[in-house]
Amino acid sequence: MSKVIADISVSLDGFVAGPHDGPGNPLGDRGDRLHQWVYGLASWREMHGLEGGERNQDADLMGETWSRTGAYVMGKRMFANGEEPWGEEPPFHGPVFVLTHTPREPLVKKGGTTFTFVTDGVERALARAREAAGGQDVSVAGGGQVIQQLVKAGLLDELQIHLVPVLLGGGVRLFEDMGPETIEFETTRVLASTGVTHLTLRPAK
Amino acid sequence: MSKVIADISVSLDGFVAGPHDGPGNPLGDRGDRLHQWVYGLASWREMHGLEGGERNQDADLMGETWSRTGAYVMGKRMFANGEEPWGEEPPFHGPVFVLTHTPREPLVKKGGTTFTFVTDGVERALARAREAAGGQDVSVAGGGQVIQQLVKAGLLDELQIHLVPVLLGGGVRLFEDMGPETIEFETTRVLASTGVTHLTLRPAK
Repeated sequence: MSKVIADISVSLDGFVAGPHDGPGNPLGDRGDRLHQWVYGLASWREMHGLEGGERNQDADLMGETWSRTGAYVMGKRMFANGEEPWGEEPPFHGPVFVLTHTPREPLVKKGGTTFTFVTDGVERALARAREAAGGQDVSVAGGGQVIQQLVKAGLLDELQIHLVPVLLGGGVRLFEDMGPETIEFETTRVLASTGVTHLTLRPAK
Repeated sequence: MSKVIADISVSLDGFVAGPHDGPGNPLGDRGDRLHQWVYGLASWREMHGLEGGERNQDADLMGETWSRTGAYVMGKRMFANGEEPWGEEPPFHGPVFVLTHTPREPLVKKGGTTFTFVTDGVERALARAREAAGGQDVSVAGGGQVIQQLVKAGLLDELQIHLVPVLLGGGVRLFEDMGPETIEFETTRVLASTGVTHLTLRPAK
């Protein structure tokens, strides 16, 4: 059974983007700091059509997540922020379902990425992504709000956090106002690297 | 040279206490969930004058921190919340310097704990704790606001976070509004246990 996974870099103070994010500033002020661990990796470079790069534990982990992903779900804010910088060949190389309130024709990009706009809610977007994934996992690309929504609804099977030891001081939190009940996870894997700690969590049954 | 260390349990959404903390509800609603990993440990039981308990990696870590600590610094909110539940023999067994605005005579408790109230700021409290620690480390018992203040002022040498994989949904954050500059740490140790991940961090120089 394919899983719904989310995979995201988070600061020590809980932010997934810096302040003032928007088109033209997709990661927010200082938000690129969260992704520094990834830019030099061979698997990241491969996703972006580049050669070379480091082959280490971080690259393996990233490659592993990428290779098990058959489709993506994404929030409208992430799409709005990312559309321009991703350019003509976005790094997804597969079907991406964008949650939105505004109907729009599918957008076909080079390298296998298609953006399909879904206006009838996150469950429907997940169902369509699952179908498109052909037995592989569905990866929630972000942002924080979509992940929050899925966790609250019990629809996320796995959360992979890349904890970066920096305080951003502001921005978009991964978890904000998650409601008056505790939500329990089990930590199924911890990988410590230089400059980032990878935690794999799954909701406790 | 003795270090200034902080050692604190934090939820996955960044809280060190649940909502509505105060005297009578010292950890806030649901906040005791953050400390469940510690209650059964031999080293915790020893601090509280109890016998038995588990001897494992978590207990060793806690005992290690306890044995290197010569004095404590604490915020007024933590003291106000804790004074009653700690009772006549608080678990510190050493000198504790409480930051406050209200002068008060020192409070001598059983088992070696003394609370000294410091009204002239955190640097002075640290200096007095350092003197009292006799070459051992000074441990910042909490709460979150004191730790924030020390991190901002560059006065913390080591931060030990016990990351508990639960969302509390509200309460007192460890890091809130840390300001418009990134603050970098190095992760010097990661220990994964069942139910808690221990991260040791030090401010990057």
